[in-house]
Amino acid sequence: MAKKSFPLSKVYGLLEPGPVVMVTTARKGQPNIMTMSWYTMMEFEPPLVGCVISNRNYSFDTLKATRECVINIPTVELAKQVVSVGNSHGPKLDKFAASGLTPATATYVKAPLIAECYVNLECRLADTRLVNKYCFFVLEVLAAWIDPAVKDPRTMHHRGNGVFMLAGEIIKLPSKMK
Amino acid sequence: MAKKSFPLSKVYGLLEPGPVVMVTTARKGQPNIMTMSWYTMMEFEPPLVGCVISNRNYSFDTLKATRECVINIPTVELAKQVVSVGNSHGPKLDKFAASGLTPATATYVKAPLIAECYVNLECRLADTRLVNKYCFFVLEVLAAWIDPAVKDPRTMHHRGNGVFMLAGEIIKLPSKMK
Repeated sequence: MAKKSFPLSKVYGLLEPGPVVMVTTARKGQPNIMTMSWYTMMEFEPPLVGCVISNRNYSFDTLKATRECVINIPTVELAKQVVSVGNSHGPKLDKFAASGLTPATATYVKAPLIAECYVNLECRLADTRLVNKYCFFVLEVLAAWIDPAVKDPRTMHHRGNGVFMLAGEIIKLPSKMK
Repeated sequence: MAKKSFPLSKVYGLLEPGPVVMVTTARKGQPNIMTMSWYTMMEFEPPLVGCVISNRNYSFDTLKATRECVINIPTVELAKQVVSVGNSHGPKLDKFAASGLTPATATYVKAPLIAECYVNLECRLADTRLVNKYCFFVLEVLAAWIDPAVKDPRTMHHRGNGVFMLAGEIIKLPSKMK
């Protein structure tokens, strides 16, 4: 899967619909993956993304220490892997091996991209003011990569307790909203 | 449409999938409505929602001054009204009259509910630390109302520039995630 660079000015359109994402981090050569649905765009360009990563997650400490991560967007073809990642915890587990996902080298960060995800966003930690109180991190997207072959991504949207809504019909409305 | 009280502990499942919402505020008896896609859950219970409301929006000043609002979730049946609200601006415009939406009285806040939306979340401003830098407000949901007749809400998910993804198929996976 050859990915192409994607304009930072258009990243908001990938995250605004609210798909489940997988966040990758790495520390001392040990990669980790977690699933995440609690995030929002905060600025168009450079793209800022705010996200909640629980301090019960191993990724919390790694993100605080390394100040970088990758946001990867899966489609429903990866449902089994998303569930595998969401159900497993712990610093000793190799989640790439356990889930069958493939790490790929990023350009700006040490955290790996997930090769199978159709979008990868390399991120640097930009603001930690709400980390202590809400576990809320503000990330800046440094680079975005997309699989140009995926024209109609069937993203997964978490409704809680294992129920997911899949991306459905696309409509175009006379909206002036960016 | 008779709405029922909805448990606060389950509110996250309504917002996590990422639907476009309409935020209502009111100041000195003058209601306002804006569309919003830049928000995230921040805590399960009491439910906290973080959201970006641009300081170019009239709602920004009203929310800062009154410290309360309502988050209303529309379905695709309200697409025309969502676009109408998103395309119009200004403190002098009565957006309820212009869009044909119906205000209803809330229980805990002075901002009106939008009667036609299948979910209404009455909110109080909980944290303003990131307002100056990012226009990011943390809201606490005080009460949630749902139309029990809507079993399969076809929510709208903004992809930018008038393109919306509609909620599609629902699947259940063996996920242990809350």
